[in-house]
Parts: sequence; structure tokens; C-alpha cells
Amino acid sequence: MSNSTTFKNLVYSIMAGYQSNTNMVKIDSPVPINKASVLEIVNKLQFLVFPGYFSTINLKSDTVEYYTGSLLEELAHHLEKQIFRAFYLYGGNEDGLQERSEKIALEFLQRVPAVQSLLSTDVDAFYDGDPAAYNTDEIILSYPGLYALMVNRLAHELYILGVPTIPRMMTEHAHSLTGIDINPGAVIGHHFFMDHGTGIVVGETTIIGNYVKVYQGVTLGALSTRGGQQLRGKKRHPTIEDNVTIYSGASILGGDTIIGKNVTIGSNAFIVKSVPEQTKVSIRSPELSIVSNESKHTQDADGNWYYMI
Amino acid sequence: MSNSTTFKNLVYSIMAGYQSNTNMVKIDSPVPINKASVLEIVNKLQFLVFPGYFSTINLKSDTVEYYTGSLLEELAHHLEKQIFRAFYLYGGNEDGLQERSEKIALEFLQRVPAVQSLLSTDVDAFYDGDPAAYNTDEIILSYPGLYALMVNRLAHELYILGVPTIPRMMTEHAHSLTGIDINPGAVIGHHFFMDHGTGIVVGETTIIGNYVKVYQGVTLGALSTRGGQQLRGKKRHPTIEDNVTIYSGASILGGDTIIGKNVTIGSNAFIVKSVPEQTKVSIRSPELSIVSNESKHTQDADGNWYYMI
Amino acid sequence: MSNSTTFKNLVYSIMAGYQSNTNMVKIDSPVPINKASVLEIVNKLQFLVFPGYFSTINLKSDTVEYYTGSLLEELAHHLEKQIFRAFYLYGGNEDGLQERSEKIALEFLQRVPAVQSLLSTDVDAFYDGDPAAYNTDEIILSYPGLYALMVNRLAHELYILGVPTIPRMMTEHAHSLTGIDINPGAVIGHHFFMDHGTGIVVGETTIIGNYVKVYQGVTLGALSTRGGQQLRGKKRHPTIEDNVTIYSGASILGGDTIIGKNVTIGSNAFIVKSVPEQTKVSIRSPELSIVSNESKHTQDADGNWYYMI
Repeated sequence: MSNSTTFKNLVYSIMAGYQSNTNMVKIDSPVPINKASVLEIVNKLQFLVFPGYFSTINLKSDTVEYYTGSLLEELAHHLEKQIFRAFYLYGGNEDGLQERSEKIALEFLQRVPAVQSLLSTDVDAFYDGDPAAYNTDEIILSYPGLYALMVNRLAHELYILGVPTIPRMMTEHAHSLTGIDINPGAVIGHHFFMDHGTGIVVGETTIIGNYVKVYQGVTLGALSTRGGQQLRGKKRHPTIEDNVTIYSGASILGGDTIIGKNVTIGSNAFIVKSVPEQTKVSIRSPELSIVSNESKHTQDADGNWYYMI
Repeated sequence: MSNSTTFKNLVYSIMAGYQSNTNMVKIDSPVPINKASVLEIVNKLQFLVFPGYFSTINLKSDTVEYYTGSLLEELAHHLEKQIFRAFYLYGGNEDGLQERSEKIALEFLQRVPAVQSLLSTDVDAFYDGDPAAYNTDEIILSYPGLYALMVNRLAHELYILGVPTIPRMMTEHAHSLTGIDINPGAVIGHHFFMDHGTGIVVGETTIIGNYVKVYQGVTLGALSTRGGQQLRGKKRHPTIEDNVTIYSGASILGGDTIIGKNVTIGSNAFIVKSVPEQTKVSIRSPELSIVSNESKHTQDADGNWYYMI
Repeated sequence: MSNSTTFKNLVYSIMAGYQSNTNMVKIDSPVPINKASVLEIVNKLQFLVFPGYFSTINLKSDTVEYYTGSLLEELAHHLEKQIFRAFYLYGGNEDGLQERSEKIALEFLQRVPAVQSLLSTDVDAFYDGDPAAYNTDEIILSYPGLYALMVNRLAHELYILGVPTIPRMMTEHAHSLTGIDINPGAVIGHHFFMDHGTGIVVGETTIIGNYVKVYQGVTLGALSTRGGQQLRGKKRHPTIEDNVTIYSGASILGGDTIIGKNVTIGSNAFIVKSVPEQTKVSIRSPELSIVSNESKHTQDADGNWYYMI
């Protein structure tokens, strides 16, 4: 690109774009939330919740206090900073915001042991539910469902502490790594189990009881979203009571939809009304047509029988 | 591995594999496209399109010109190099290839403001469409749909400039990060919205109008691919006109299939024929069977009612 | 967080959590498997299987032996170490474990050329099957399906050598990057092809023949998992014979289910019984209802016609 006029024109045209697309630009703005820092916080929280599993050093009971203390110091420092930015950006620079941010970072960290206890029940549920799991280490070191759940349970605490945007950044990071999209607003009981996980969607106002199992491709979603932003804050997603199992590909939709205790929902069921407790719901699977490869009747008038890229 | 003969034999057997599996090997070949460099280009383009959001420094209007200039210089340098390799590898070392590569890198960068303007409409569409979005920063910093769309819109410009392989590397990277697989050949209008996104597939010859909304698990795909490579370049994927909404899990297939303006496609619909404008398409959901947990009729003769790992 | 008492209390409460949630903690334990090292092994294996594609240097036939030798040395070193840890952790510190680990690392590396030959047939199958592929480099550099298959084929060799946990860590890493979840226990023939891939699930005891094609969202899974850990080791997943094609969204379930040679399974079919060879299986797609936007009959009594977030 030897032509310096051309290059300068390029710079100017990019900067002209910055002028016109104002919703894309943070210039002369308060410092934005640092995404890299938020992701580093998630990493360090994983160290804190599963001590010894992801650290490069071998933890010993004599010295674990120092390890934990220094990890907490780092976490508190970065959390305070990003929480401050989140409040400042989306709430304004009120008096005492620095102190408030520090207080909330601390409150969050104080909740970590409770989150760890919940996750401890999840590890048990994952092991009990999956014959392909050879030990719980395997689950902690590699299962995407447990990772997404860890991030969600932690993000949920920040969410209920009222921290804007950071919780969603955390869960969308887990979504990216796992294909599991759980909004930080969702309330999830103990002993939660997800298998395979890819494609699971759990909306913001979902409430999930204890001992619930969810398989790949399940949506706990909303009915019509035509209302868009006007629906914000309303209960739009279902309530799932204790001991419910939801098999792969099922969709359960709507804020008034309650799935009662001990219900089992079969694969691919599409549910928009409440289901009474102690029942099993299944769909009559679409009828199969089996014809020989020589048959010419491979496609009926309605266009069934398709090949798909 | 103390036995040095064993180790040497191992090296030789690996190298023998290199001799026989020639489609797996780049030895004595022109330099391949550097994947790490392509991914770095994508990162820097995100800085350029959303200035101030992902940079570690706080952008100010006084100095943003220098920031933009130096970012563009780096981008031009790396783009020229990888574009040169792509043309050289898949088109041969024609005269003036270096100049041509520089020219195309420049043309691409000149299109960035237009791409930014399109993405600016997408940010608005994402915000309007999703009650779970608290602000547009959240969308820019964390929504996988917007990220996949950014990469796709940029890759599409390289695709129509005729650059081989790099556009696909870019979109497959986004696919890996988001679970959203949009081929760089797809043409997408303004105000495009994807929610959740996981499992969305948009084929190479798809054409999408303005104000289109697409939910998780939607396929815009091809009918039979038995033709394999013979189908390359043909219109194999559908056309979606303005203001269409396609709910989760729906499949729309075939190069002659046109979904008319203002159509809504319900969840899980499977469509291989054109749909007239101003209509709503839905499937009669498979009938639900609800039985009590005590019932022995939990599985009918056709084998319905299943549990699935 | 200036209050040092508060901070100390926080450290103590975290450490109290470590006491009670013993399944979350590795303290005073044998060294756990190093996840970062396992992922680095996967990266280096990709260099070994596709020499010249991902290396920063340009490989030449004169010197490729040194490159390969040094890559193998590094791989052997890290593999021995992590394999030792895996055996030690999940089998105990038997006599001669160090030698056994070295031997198994070597045996594994000796199988790499055979894996490379299999993957070479896969590259051909990917190219033949996908009109959107412009060349095989594009497939090697960017297709998630090929990456997941590479990791699976390598992890499978460690799995049949009896190495615990590491194979699963490898395939779950690929799952995270691709949305494709293939258990390392699955046996997969040559010329295997996956398109798009997101949402594919292949269970531990699945057996897949040669020339099989699988599209996005396909599950090769188990029927009821109510048995949980008691089902471990049993054949729970289907057998797919040669030359079978399975289109998107189909589920094939159960350890006794055999899909015969040359069968084609249509999109979204749900199959729990064996299918005879030389046949095509399709579902009658649910009937479509198409009404105009002005129609008030947009939702029937059964609640069909839904919008979904």
C-alpha cells in the first residue's frame, strides 16, 4: 500500500464511519468493561471452586491458605474494578460508587462457598446420571455441562447482586465454549444434570427445582417475543419442579407453564401448557416410511423424504 | 523412551506415513495460509468495527486517528500476505500477483465502513428483538449471534472479491466460537437478528433480505447433496425475503424455495417449497400423550415414548 | 477491601468449603492430570498428522526428519507424564508404572501413521461430499467435522490402550471447539463424513462402518439411562453399517439397533429398532398449516403455532 494518499483516505473513511455509526463506538466514553479481565476472573473462580484441579502447582494442606488468600486478593481486585465500570456505565457515577463496588465484590466472594456446595451436588448428579463417566475427576476436568453450570451459578450471584452486563458476559463465554446457553437470571436448584449439552437454551426467568435432568437440544424458552423490549422483566420462561427429566430436543415454552414434580418429558416434545406432577409426557413420533432402495416411491406428493446439506 | 532404535523406527514410520498420505502433507509446497494470522486479522477487524470496545486503551477523539491508522497498517500488512498466499496456492503465481494482493487487501479495507453500517443496523435489531438484552454494549461485548454476523459480513466481502479459502477459515472460526455456521457466500440484508444461535446453519447460496429474524437450530440448507462436487456453484439454498421470522428448529431447504415477504415460519417446520408472502406457516405439533407415572402404558406398540442419553 | 478481618474471614470461609465439599478438591492428592498439557498434546498431534499445515515454518523434505523427530520427542515426553498420572490416579501406583506409561506412550505414537491413513480417507470423503468445499486445504485448515474426527480417532487409540480419563478430556475439548460430541469409545470406519456438525452426539459404544455420512444434529444415542452407572460397559448405542447416510436431526437409539448397509435415514427420523439394509427411511413430515397474516386462526385449540425465544 505504497500510495500514501490512498491510505490516508482509507483512514478518513474509517473515521467517517465512526461518526455515523455511533452505536458501534466507544470514544471519549467512560472506560468499557474489560472483556479479557472478565474471562480471567472466570478462570480464577474455577481455580477457587475446584482447588487443585486446574492449578499448575500441587496443593498441600499446609500451604493452601496462602494459595487461596492470594487468589482471593487477585479476584477481589479485578472484580471491584470491573463491577465499578459496570455500575458507572449503566447506572451513572453516584456518590460512594467505589465503596459500593468493593462491597459487592466482597459479598459475591462470600457466596462462593455456597455455590461450591451446590456444584458439589451437581458433580454427584452428573456421575450418577451418566454411565459414560468413569470418575468424577473426568466430569470436573472435561464435562461442558458442569463448566456451563459453574459459570451460570457464579454469574447468577452477580445477577442477583444487581451487577449489570458482567453476568451475561460470563454466561455467553460459557455458551461459546459449550454450546449451552443459560441466562444468568435462571434460578437452578441442587443436583442439576445436563448430558451432552449442545444446544440447550434456558431463558432468563426460568425457575428449575432440585434433581432435574436436561439433555442436549432442550429449550426452556418464551412464547412470542413480538413484544421485544416491552417484555423485559416479565416472567416469560417456564417453571420446572423437582425431579423432572427432560429428554433431548424437547421445548417447554411460556412463563405460565409449570412442569410438575416427578414428570418425565420425552424427546422432541413441544410443550406450551402446564403438565401435572407424577406424569410422563411423550409424543407419538412421526410415522416412519421404509422403502427399498429400488423403490421409485421415494418421495410422496407432500414432498416428504428429503436429503439435506 | 530410552531405546534409540525404537525411537528412530518411530520417526521413520511417521515419515513413511507422510509419503503415502499425500493429501495430508505440505512439504516442499508453497507456504500455506497461516491460520493464526487469519484469526489475528479477525481480532483486529473486531477492533476496527467496534472501536473502543475491545481495545485495552481508552480511545479519545484527539488520538483515535493514530490508533486507527496503525491498526489499518497492521491489517493491510497481514491481509496482503495471506491473500497473496491464497491466490498463489489456489490460482498459481501469475504476473503481478503481489500488486493484485495489495490491491484486494485495500479494496477490502475500503469496504469496512459499509460493513460497519450494516452491523450498526444489526445491533439495533438485536436490541429490539431480545427482552433479555439490557443494553447494546452487552450485545456487542457478548452476543455470539452478533459476533458470527460480524465475521460473516467481513468474510463475505473477501468472498466476493474472489479470495479463496480465507473467507471460509474466518467463518469456520466463528462457527467454532458460536455454534453458528454461516457460509461466507450467503448474502444477508440489513437489520438481521439471530437469538441464541446455537445450531444455525446458513448455506453458501442462501439469499436473505432485510429485517429477518432467525432463532436457534434453524437450517437454511440444500436438498439432496448426492451430486457432491458437481453441485458446486449452483443455487442450492433458499431465498428469504424481507421481514421474515423463522422460529427455532425450522428447516428451509432447496435453491428454488422462496419465503415471501412478511412470512412467519413456526418452530420445527420442515419446508422444501416456496411460501407465499404475508402468511404464517406452522406445523401441527405431534400429539402429546400424558400418562401417570403409575401407568404401565408407557410405551406403545410403535415404540413411542423413549428415554435418550 | 481494606478491612483485613473481613478478608481473613473470607479466606477461612472458602477453606471451610474445601473441607465440606470433598469431591471438589485436590489437596494433598497425587498430582492431577494437567489439562493444559493434554490440550498441548492435541495441538502437537495435529502438527504430526497434518505436517506443514499448522507449523509456522515451511517444511522441506531435506529437514522434515528433524522436525518430526523433535515433535515426537516432545510428544513422548508429555504423553508419558500425563499417562503416568492417569494410571496412578485411577489405578494405583503399581510396580513398573513408569515403564508401562512409557511403553503405552510409544505404542500410541506408533499407531499415528494408521490414524493418519484413516484421516486421509476422511479428507477425501469430506471433499467428495460437500459442494461448498473448494479444495482439501480448506477442509484441513477449517472444517470442524474433520478436527473432531481427528481428535476422536487419536483419543480412541488411547482409549483402547486402556488409558483413563485423558481420551475423554481430548474429545470434550474437540466438543467444546466444534459442538460435535463423539465419545472416544466409538468405533468409526474409514471415509467418514460429517457436514456442519453442530449438535452431533455419538455415544461410547457406537459402532460405525465405512463410507458413512452424518449431518448436523444427529444423535447416535442410548435408550433409557435410568440405570445410570449400572449401565457402564454395556452396549447402549447403535451399530451403523457401511455406506449409510443419516440426514440432519435424526436420532438412532439403543444398543440392539442396527442400521443395515446402504440405508439412508431422512431428516428428523426417530429410530429405536433395526432397519434392514438397502432401504430408505423417512418420516412423514408434520403437516404444514399456511394462513394469511390477516387470518385470526393463527393458533388452534391444541396450542399449535408458536413463537419461541
